[in-house]
Amino acid sequence: MEIKVLKNIMHANQQLAEENRKFFKERNIVAVNVMASPGAGKTSTILKVIEALRDKVNICVVEGDIASSIDAEKIDKLGISVVQINTGGGCHLDANMIRTVADDLKLEENSILFIENVGNLVCPSSFDLGEGIKLVIASVPEGHDKPFKYTSMFQEADVIILNKMDLMPYIDFDRDSFYKGIRALNETVPVFEISCKTGEGLPAFVEWLGNKVK
Amino acid sequence: MEIKVLKNIMHANQQLAEENRKFFKERNIVAVNVMASPGAGKTSTILKVIEALRDKVNICVVEGDIASSIDAEKIDKLGISVVQINTGGGCHLDANMIRTVADDLKLEENSILFIENVGNLVCPSSFDLGEGIKLVIASVPEGHDKPFKYTSMFQEADVIILNKMDLMPYIDFDRDSFYKGIRALNETVPVFEISCKTGEGLPAFVEWLGNKVK
Repeated sequence: MEIKVLKNIMHANQQLAEENRKFFKERNIVAVNVMASPGAGKTSTILKVIEALRDKVNICVVEGDIASSIDAEKIDKLGISVVQINTGGGCHLDANMIRTVADDLKLEENSILFIENVGNLVCPSSFDLGEGIKLVIASVPEGHDKPFKYTSMFQEADVIILNKMDLMPYIDFDRDSFYKGIRALNETVPVFEISCKTGEGLPAFVEWLGNKVK
Repeated sequence: MEIKVLKNIMHANQQLAEENRKFFKERNIVAVNVMASPGAGKTSTILKVIEALRDKVNICVVEGDIASSIDAEKIDKLGISVVQINTGGGCHLDANMIRTVADDLKLEENSILFIENVGNLVCPSSFDLGEGIKLVIASVPEGHDKPFKYTSMFQEADVIILNKMDLMPYIDFDRDSFYKGIRALNETVPVFEISCKTGEGLPAFVEWLGNKVK
């Protein structure tokens, strides 16, 4: 019985996700589902992209967290339209949550919608939100073995960021192994090495993302 | 209906957890449920404790991962009894998994059993394994705001480690805020600041844990 119920939930989520996807596509809204471990730099990356692109394209943000509104406050300070979703213990966002808050955002046509998922390298990969781009952020201090352990996340990614490159000198991180892990799962996914602290590598990612709105 | 099924699952898990707890208690086995974000240093911490305590106390390890046996191989190399659980996508270990593998370990009386959970700061906190100690490992590069965002994990912890202290000079980490977040949830939990890389702070944690077996 448990399996049946789970299937129903997943099926209902998928239907809502397709509706969201249609909604975004009709308005040329590039919805980016941002997924990562806690503290890998989801909010930092979003803040950096806002800084670089806000004069060229409308950007809105959905902030997913179990508790707190720390990240949403950072976005709000920049005068960017942001909605906080607190899952109240839940380990991922789902398509219905996105549908529910979409009306509260100042979403324009030809814009970017960042959806920052709950910090979790496991569960969010199973729930389609209707996004156009799945962005997975890994970070150098987490270590190079993450693609081998959290396979689903890296397999599903449309784009991968390796953040905190500024810490590379202090950490035993095997870049070859990291890329080997990714390529075994996902042959063509673009990978951007960046540092939100120094700004290193960000222009290339910003250009890549900016081109998706055109 | 979904809620009912979930309750059944949680109830069944709790019953099995109590059986595990009784099993461990009768044999004076200190079972430590090690929980953290991906890459915070769960395996590194276990390896360091093994190094420090193996001559004084029997130690066994259960390695939980979604995929791969990378961590179990590291433990096995030391000649320590280890069993790998691959959850096949599952985001946490549960009490039945522990019961299933207990017989495969060389568990002696008066020993330590490390149970390394799936790297996930959310879901594992909801599933009692029958452990005696919930160890939560945070790491400096994840940032000081984790206790505010992943409240359940820090609230339930019997002991907290802050790992990767060697990276403190390179990271904007507000220690006061980190401790404020913890104390708001958990007034008395001991916190050990360590670096598995330099060995800093490990002796105090090793002593604390070693005393639990006596």
